[in-house]
Amino acid sequence: MFQKEQWASFEGRLWKEEINVRDFIQKNYKPYDGDASFLAAPTDATNKLWGRLQELQKQERAKGGVLDMETEVVAGLTAYGPGYIDEELKDLEKVVGLQTDKPLKRAFMPYGGIKMAEESCRNYGYEPNPELHKIFTEYHKTHNQGVFDAYTPEMRAARRSHIITGLPDTYGRGRIVGDYRRVALYGIDILMEEKLKDFNNCGDGTMVDEVIRQREEITEQYRALAGMKKMAESYGFDISQPAKNATEACQWLYFGYLAAIKTQNGAAMSVGRISTFLDIYIQRDLDNGTLTEEQAQELIDHMTMKFRMVKFARVTSYNELFSGDPTWATLEVAGIGVDGRHMVTKNDFRFLHTLENMGPSPEPNLTVLYSSALPENFKEYAAKISVTTSSIQYENDDVMKPVWGDDYSICCCVSATQTGKEMQFFGARANLAKCLLYAINGGVDEKSGVQVAPEFKGITSEYLDYDEVIAKYEVMSDWLAGLYVNILNLIQYMHDKYYYEAAEMALIDTEVRRTFATGIAGFSHVVDSLSAIKYAKVKTIRNEAGIVVDYEVEGEFPKYGNDDDRADNIAVYVLKSFLDKIKKRHTYRNSEATTSILTITSNVVYGKYTGAMPDGRKAWTPLAPGGNPSYGAEQNGLLASLNSLTKLPYEWALDGISNTQTINPGSLGHNDEERVDKLVQVLDGYFDQGAHHLNVNVFGIEKLKDAMEHPEKEEYANFTIRVSGYAVKFIDLTREQQLDVIARTCHDRM
Amino acid sequence: MFQKEQWASFEGRLWKEEINVRDFIQKNYKPYDGDASFLAAPTDATNKLWGRLQELQKQERAKGGVLDMETEVVAGLTAYGPGYIDEELKDLEKVVGLQTDKPLKRAFMPYGGIKMAEESCRNYGYEPNPELHKIFTEYHKTHNQGVFDAYTPEMRAARRSHIITGLPDTYGRGRIVGDYRRVALYGIDILMEEKLKDFNNCGDGTMVDEVIRQREEITEQYRALAGMKKMAESYGFDISQPAKNATEACQWLYFGYLAAIKTQNGAAMSVGRISTFLDIYIQRDLDNGTLTEEQAQELIDHMTMKFRMVKFARVTSYNELFSGDPTWATLEVAGIGVDGRHMVTKNDFRFLHTLENMGPSPEPNLTVLYSSALPENFKEYAAKISVTTSSIQYENDDVMKPVWGDDYSICCCVSATQTGKEMQFFGARANLAKCLLYAINGGVDEKSGVQVAPEFKGITSEYLDYDEVIAKYEVMSDWLAGLYVNILNLIQYMHDKYYYEAAEMALIDTEVRRTFATGIAGFSHVVDSLSAIKYAKVKTIRNEAGIVVDYEVEGEFPKYGNDDDRADNIAVYVLKSFLDKIKKRHTYRNSEATTSILTITSNVVYGKYTGAMPDGRKAWTPLAPGGNPSYGAEQNGLLASLNSLTKLPYEWALDGISNTQTINPGSLGHNDEERVDKLVQVLDGYFDQGAHHLNVNVFGIEKLKDAMEHPEKEEYANFTIRVSGYAVKFIDLTREQQLDVIARTCHDRM
Repeated sequence: MFQKEQWASFEGRLWKEEINVRDFIQKNYKPYDGDASFLAAPTDATNKLWGRLQELQKQERAKGGVLDMETEVVAGLTAYGPGYIDEELKDLEKVVGLQTDKPLKRAFMPYGGIKMAEESCRNYGYEPNPELHKIFTEYHKTHNQGVFDAYTPEMRAARRSHIITGLPDTYGRGRIVGDYRRVALYGIDILMEEKLKDFNNCGDGTMVDEVIRQREEITEQYRALAGMKKMAESYGFDISQPAKNATEACQWLYFGYLAAIKTQNGAAMSVGRISTFLDIYIQRDLDNGTLTEEQAQELIDHMTMKFRMVKFARVTSYNELFSGDPTWATLEVAGIGVDGRHMVTKNDFRFLHTLENMGPSPEPNLTVLYSSALPENFKEYAAKISVTTSSIQYENDDVMKPVWGDDYSICCCVSATQTGKEMQFFGARANLAKCLLYAINGGVDEKSGVQVAPEFKGITSEYLDYDEVIAKYEVMSDWLAGLYVNILNLIQYMHDKYYYEAAEMALIDTEVRRTFATGIAGFSHVVDSLSAIKYAKVKTIRNEAGIVVDYEVEGEFPKYGNDDDRADNIAVYVLKSFLDKIKKRHTYRNSEATTSILTITSNVVYGKYTGAMPDGRKAWTPLAPGGNPSYGAEQNGLLASLNSLTKLPYEWALDGISNTQTINPGSLGHNDEERVDKLVQVLDGYFDQGAHHLNVNVFGIEKLKDAMEHPEKEEYANFTIRVSGYAVKFIDLTREQQLDVIARTCHDRM
Repeated sequence: MFQKEQWASFEGRLWKEEINVRDFIQKNYKPYDGDASFLAAPTDATNKLWGRLQELQKQERAKGGVLDMETEVVAGLTAYGPGYIDEELKDLEKVVGLQTDKPLKRAFMPYGGIKMAEESCRNYGYEPNPELHKIFTEYHKTHNQGVFDAYTPEMRAARRSHIITGLPDTYGRGRIVGDYRRVALYGIDILMEEKLKDFNNCGDGTMVDEVIRQREEITEQYRALAGMKKMAESYGFDISQPAKNATEACQWLYFGYLAAIKTQNGAAMSVGRISTFLDIYIQRDLDNGTLTEEQAQELIDHMTMKFRMVKFARVTSYNELFSGDPTWATLEVAGIGVDGRHMVTKNDFRFLHTLENMGPSPEPNLTVLYSSALPENFKEYAAKISVTTSSIQYENDDVMKPVWGDDYSICCCVSATQTGKEMQFFGARANLAKCLLYAINGGVDEKSGVQVAPEFKGITSEYLDYDEVIAKYEVMSDWLAGLYVNILNLIQYMHDKYYYEAAEMALIDTEVRRTFATGIAGFSHVVDSLSAIKYAKVKTIRNEAGIVVDYEVEGEFPKYGNDDDRADNIAVYVLKSFLDKIKKRHTYRNSEATTSILTITSNVVYGKYTGAMPDGRKAWTPLAPGGNPSYGAEQNGLLASLNSLTKLPYEWALDGISNTQTINPGSLGHNDEERVDKLVQVLDGYFDQGAHHLNVNVFGIEKLKDAMEHPEKEEYANFTIRVSGYAVKFIDLTREQQLDVIARTCHDRM
């Protein structure tokens, strides 16, 4: 049993017997039922640092989105000495640590793919040292090269035609949340000791490949832990021992996270569920008089500032997919424990309060683990933040808790993962809208005319028959699911081989549970198209080659997003049918397959490669994002739309179903107080029905249009909106993306 | 079906339908029954080049064994431009190509282990560029690091105590023989085409780890083939098409081999069974008058010169294990086809004749695939070469052919491998002598006093009881076999991961058969010790800690090497018992486990770490090498000794049983003619009984002693002897090794 003086006054045994942060939290956190009146304003230090950072952000935007890039040094735990927001202000920083030597400077990260690393430099006018090219082509193979060395021609064709896309085959796969709290609670030495025990207990002596691989991985984790200590030393901190107060706890925890973002460039680099944990340290210091609320808020503000600074070098095509430079430094607040006690603490207020103290911001991707059973004071405060900043999202703790327990983190936009117990193999998306078109056209791509899928027999009749279409869709989606899973198997294998997340996995249990995430794009269009074929008459329009390139719909048909069972039942079928086809297949490291209906902003790019659909969607226009109904389909108000969503069982889309809604402030009420009350009602109702996720935007379309035309206005500098699964500064979106956001339904009525 | 103009006049179909060099050979080679009288003397060019090379070799010896080393450039197919023995003589070279840019300069090969690469430089006064250290520690992990990242403490202890040793965990595993003939017969383009077909036909679409790994490997092979073309281009040759004559065939084939030795530094880097193959090209050119016998011999001489120049950078400890800078550029002649026709060609004479044209030499490691059914003329010529040069070895084709067919190569000293169809996972040796001592001492190491094996109960009685010892030996050798196989599993896994032999595997079938080689050291001492315990009385002598450190034998006992079934039956038991324990275990990539009784010169080092044995062998003295009887054990002449060997079934030691014998010239006859006749008789008799291997030395002990004391004498400059499994220049051995060789039985009578 570990015994540390830093743990004085902490309760509980199990977390001292083993690495178990959840047990520590459950034994020590104090639920807070009060209101937001205790919150403190930003300190001078916060204002100065945030002011400086905003200047830097302005410079960054002025320089085309990138302030500075590394061209000589390969990223790594100890590749740089210490770095600060501003050398002259460094004593003000309560939580220190940068990814590189300068704020907002992007590191050179070649392990995912040297081409991507180089291209991302060149896209912004930087030229990496050619010696790095030699090293990462001749001497060290990268993940990207490994993947392309093994792809089949069919895989390349599917990738090229964008029926499967967004694959993490050129950079880090991301979505792995290290349990960064462990650094604070245990210190690195205990973590190393435990990993050494795991190493010595790994396998029964018979060296099968799985055991050998794991033994090597544990050693890499152990090495990464040693590297974290060295990294922290460069900032003058010894993190070998547990944090002894809240300041150290924030700093130690951040060093753990810093290790992740110094070594990996995954699309999503979540921070995880740290709020309640840190509250325990803060509350102890408040109780024993060594910390004031102002100081507590300052700590959280400074830490949050760091999360707002996470940057990766990206290429243009990546930015098209995930617009606005997101990093998914996702961070959760609230939730309910399995013992029934809510887990809201003062710290959850403090994290939300950063959006007031430092203004709205897309990062960290603040997520409220929602339940109608949360304390009213907290629900109201969160709703208030939504109404005033449109910067946060909500996920349904009531549906996630039975699956993931009460210590899960959100590892990307909306996907849950048990903190420290689990990792996810991220898997992008299959475009089911395109799959339906392939079913109709016998596997010929409607854009390129290339035979991408096997030459299954297409539909030859002029009018589409529902049963025939379904039969062909079943065959085509089975082909697609197989190809998709096998592409992912290959990507995950190569990622483990060439770009293993040692620093993150070092903070996760050795006996890790692995999920295998897949995803669906174009969901609503498949549903509505099938509905059109079933309930109306759909005529095919063919080009000279006989390929169906457009459709004429005769008559009305029910659409997903109107609480109409006729359409919504089709939605359930589309989800379940695809999940079944995914789940029956072999997955890498026997991971557990899941799926999702979330597209982030990639719905625009996916749409560009997707022809006209039987639901009336025009060719090459954006798909609806995530689980959202199609643009213009929602005819019966917000609640009817939400009701359609709630019919999709979360249990069949454990990786998440994202839903983004924009509500005109006027429809919520005449003033913020009314709006807050109304929004809480909406959230309670929606989530009580079992829906998974909601992005809430509260503004009118006029504001968006004005911001698009006048991005220079000061009021829009930090104007943040929720898009599918994350938040973004509206002015950072491409015009195309902005137009897409504007095109979405803004609910003027409930 | 491939059709190439370069194949004009060649017979057969199958080898044109698929890559099948064996079929080409069988359809086209002409057995030669004549004598050696056709052979040609060296040309002026040969004499000049060989003269120059001998000067370089002298300089190399004068500089302590290494002429030059690379410290800046990482070895690779195209890391260097062209290099020649002597720039001024380069037009004389009929077969060109060096491992680096200069003759005898050793390349920097870090992939097996950066530490070894650096240490080998420093051992000879060179300092590698520190940038290379950074690259191969921070950016690219090496095989050695991978292995040590996964070793268990038990594995490290077994390695440290030398109960398992010689493991290829710091450099290339070697022992993979690419079918270099394919480059000549098919040209690179066809080979690339076929590998592409294999890639596209690899796996059924389900991406399990094995399929992914293989797909990536094929791509690496394909890339290596392209690299070979580029490498050859730098010398002014286009090897994309088949060789059109003998000169090109020799050159193309050598480029294939050069690719291997530019990229891998395995202990054994065999050339393989190339003699009969090349004879087909030479004979065609002789027949159509485009080549003379002088030119044919010159080609073979020049090619052989290149095999004599193969060098790798080694560390001191490696040299202790494998003394005299061997590379096992093993090359076979003779053998009998499965259709009963012998496969001796004029070219077999030519290769043996290089030992006359250019004097004796340890490399290439010339191996006669022997059968009493070989033509008498050839047997006599080979025996003559043995009598005059002691540079060649014999292996029993009659026992190998049923297992490996008629196109196997020797991939190391004595181990067979089907050319182009197979690869071997090399596996060093377990010290069974030490294992017996562990059985007696309950797993405590007799040298260090450390508990290395599990704490099995040792023997506590003063006198050893045979049944008790056997029971404990069974348990201990089962532990050892398990540990050994698992160490090897781990090494082979890491080698594939970090140091894959792409260039060699590119010249081997994609659907490759894999053998998993293990080996036994200290064989005769275990046998004689068990015999002593069974047939005499063995008293234990313990140190203060109760560890048995010596033995007193009371009475006589039969010894292995005297054709005495009492001892020889124990020998059979020791072999079979160990093999069974090896074979029952999981092996990497489901390879087929084999074992061997061959120790090369490592018997001296193994002996250093092995305590006194019940057979009377003193502590820390050399073990007998390979399958040889113990020093002084043989009391009944050469034939009785050979008879003991023949009782060990080759089928249970498919990786080979090496036997090295030194015969006093006087005991063979009064003149060379008599000696040749007698040696042929001995070989016929020995191999007809089913023995596997024989190294033949014909000289007296006095010559060895004189050479040891007077290495400066001109006559000893190239004085070559056979040691266990290879040949070596006697003066290149350490004094310790020389004393060991001198101590071995020199048979003065048959």
